[in-house]
Amino acid sequence: MHAAQYLGSGRIDYVETRRTEPGPGEVAVDVHYTGICGTDLHILHGDMDARVTLPAVIGHEMSGVVRAVGDGVTEWASGHRVGVMPLAWCGQCPACRAGHHHICHRLNFLGIDSPGAMQATWVVPQNVLVRLPEGLDLRAAALLEPLAVATHDVRRAALTPGEHVLVIGGGPIGTLIALLAAGQGAEVLVSEPDTSRRALLAGFDIDAVNPLEVDLAAEVLRRTDGAGAGVTFEVSGSQAGLDAALGNLATRGRMVLVAIHATPRPVDLHRIFWRELTVLGARVYEREDFEAAAATLGRDTERLASLVTAVYPLAEAAAAFARLESGGGVMKVLLDCTEAVGA
Amino acid sequence: MHAAQYLGSGRIDYVETRRTEPGPGEVAVDVHYTGICGTDLHILHGDMDARVTLPAVIGHEMSGVVRAVGDGVTEWASGHRVGVMPLAWCGQCPACRAGHHHICHRLNFLGIDSPGAMQATWVVPQNVLVRLPEGLDLRAAALLEPLAVATHDVRRAALTPGEHVLVIGGGPIGTLIALLAAGQGAEVLVSEPDTSRRALLAGFDIDAVNPLEVDLAAEVLRRTDGAGAGVTFEVSGSQAGLDAALGNLATRGRMVLVAIHATPRPVDLHRIFWRELTVLGARVYEREDFEAAAATLGRDTERLASLVTAVYPLAEAAAAFARLESGGGVMKVLLDCTEAVGA
Repeated sequence: MHAAQYLGSGRIDYVETRRTEPGPGEVAVDVHYTGICGTDLHILHGDMDARVTLPAVIGHEMSGVVRAVGDGVTEWASGHRVGVMPLAWCGQCPACRAGHHHICHRLNFLGIDSPGAMQATWVVPQNVLVRLPEGLDLRAAALLEPLAVATHDVRRAALTPGEHVLVIGGGPIGTLIALLAAGQGAEVLVSEPDTSRRALLAGFDIDAVNPLEVDLAAEVLRRTDGAGAGVTFEVSGSQAGLDAALGNLATRGRMVLVAIHATPRPVDLHRIFWRELTVLGARVYEREDFEAAAATLGRDTERLASLVTAVYPLAEAAAAFARLESGGGVMKVLLDCTEAVGA
Repeated sequence: MHAAQYLGSGRIDYVETRRTEPGPGEVAVDVHYTGICGTDLHILHGDMDARVTLPAVIGHEMSGVVRAVGDGVTEWASGHRVGVMPLAWCGQCPACRAGHHHICHRLNFLGIDSPGAMQATWVVPQNVLVRLPEGLDLRAAALLEPLAVATHDVRRAALTPGEHVLVIGGGPIGTLIALLAAGQGAEVLVSEPDTSRRALLAGFDIDAVNPLEVDLAAEVLRRTDGAGAGVTFEVSGSQAGLDAALGNLATRGRMVLVAIHATPRPVDLHRIFWRELTVLGARVYEREDFEAAAATLGRDTERLASLVTAVYPLAEAAAAFARLESGGGVMKVLLDCTEAVGA
């Protein structure tokens, strides 16, 4: 079979590898589609070399079909259509002891800290598998993991129907958050500079503005009768995005911090105090987010599938990464791993 | 009668003033004791001249006895022992419309934005009065307002019994927070550099450490089996305090932001994301906080009264401010306004 391997310094090669059989409690999944995440781009650029062991098979957004199961696996069988919640926790750290396994202090993130889904067959522990809705298109199903991220983010916000929501950043996660929030009855506005992303959102009947052209604060006040947004999602990772996410909140509003800000940022703490704001960190997902995301995918397949901009064969992984990196007009790029099966 | 008047540029004088009669819906309260707040010190130094109209009678922590009531006041009568919740809201701004009157966008804070309690008789709208528990010592009762602040802060945290709480800063508010949290069954540790404040806390059976001498992070981990604190209260207003309040939180912990940070501070947003922390702004109080604080004062009078370091006659207001400012060993300084009654 074949895999795409990150070899360090921006290089990803398509190579022949040996298929591993599933051990006790493990399941071998034939990967159909693997999405490329922003994190995968960071890995390719060497930003995460401290966590990655070379040569590394990365990738954690996927759909597939069970090929074989190891000893002691009773819940899964060949032919089952599955996604993967790519988290393995220690069960013993303070976070695990408190029930927050998903953000275990020694979390093994499959596809980063251990081998991932950019290969023909992926062997994983049985407990990470998620059953897909009957008949769900496996391309759309590759969105399961990012949709679980967005599901978790929106759940952290505890939206009430009719609440005004501002999403800062209309990439894949921001767009999924916007779709889910609108689905829960929120009034959603997305701030996104990219024209094609705004057009995609418009196609979903979600309002989006270009913060470089529009006075975002005035627009939020206009829509909220002068109050500000009840909830904002910071999905941009930028200082300007952070300032907008905090600055446009209503009194007692909640900001959900979704994006990674790698270094400390100046934050207007006085505003948090003065308006009694809440800031909520939101990272990855819990099992219930995956279950909910799978159900959402089953209900809303067509719209969600339209987030897939392009599909490349796994053999052209390098080109696929380059396409995602090109930015403009690109939302989600998938790798088709079905051709990589081989002998 | 007499009042202490802030005259700008650090000057506060004891002057003769004319007593005002209560208008319709108003109540005249003979002030017994008025506490000096850190905010009053800021005012004296001119930091809040934009909000204060000279000559200004300031002060918002007080106890007193109703002297006379205006037309239409039926709930209050001469002789009632009262405190004041010094907030007047507009009722029409977005915060008021959403039910958050206490942080009204056009809040009139009595004692800052309008005349306060450093005078013999204070005329206030009837709806700001709070009834004191039967027989409560009026010196202790002057702590009602700061205790309501602490009550609000602790309520925002939604503590669960046995939770580990770290309070950064053991001044009056930090100490009251520590007492209330301990009263709710939390395991409380206070970080406070001042020796006499730590000694006062020790007298309340509350553990306090000097962060300049002790490795606070190691101490918190030791007490929490490696987990970190479930809740921290940032009451210091300093960068180091902020860093400690965020840095010592357990996964999914909550930091309550009590102190004023006048300018933006570098904040480790990655930690908020990574550990799914919550940051909660907490400002002033709501009616229920005053009711709860009055009940607490009634139950725990002696311990709370021991926070009063010194009482000065109103005529010596300038000396009282200087004493508070001297720092070391001083917790709460009161002004005795009963001698200021005159004719």
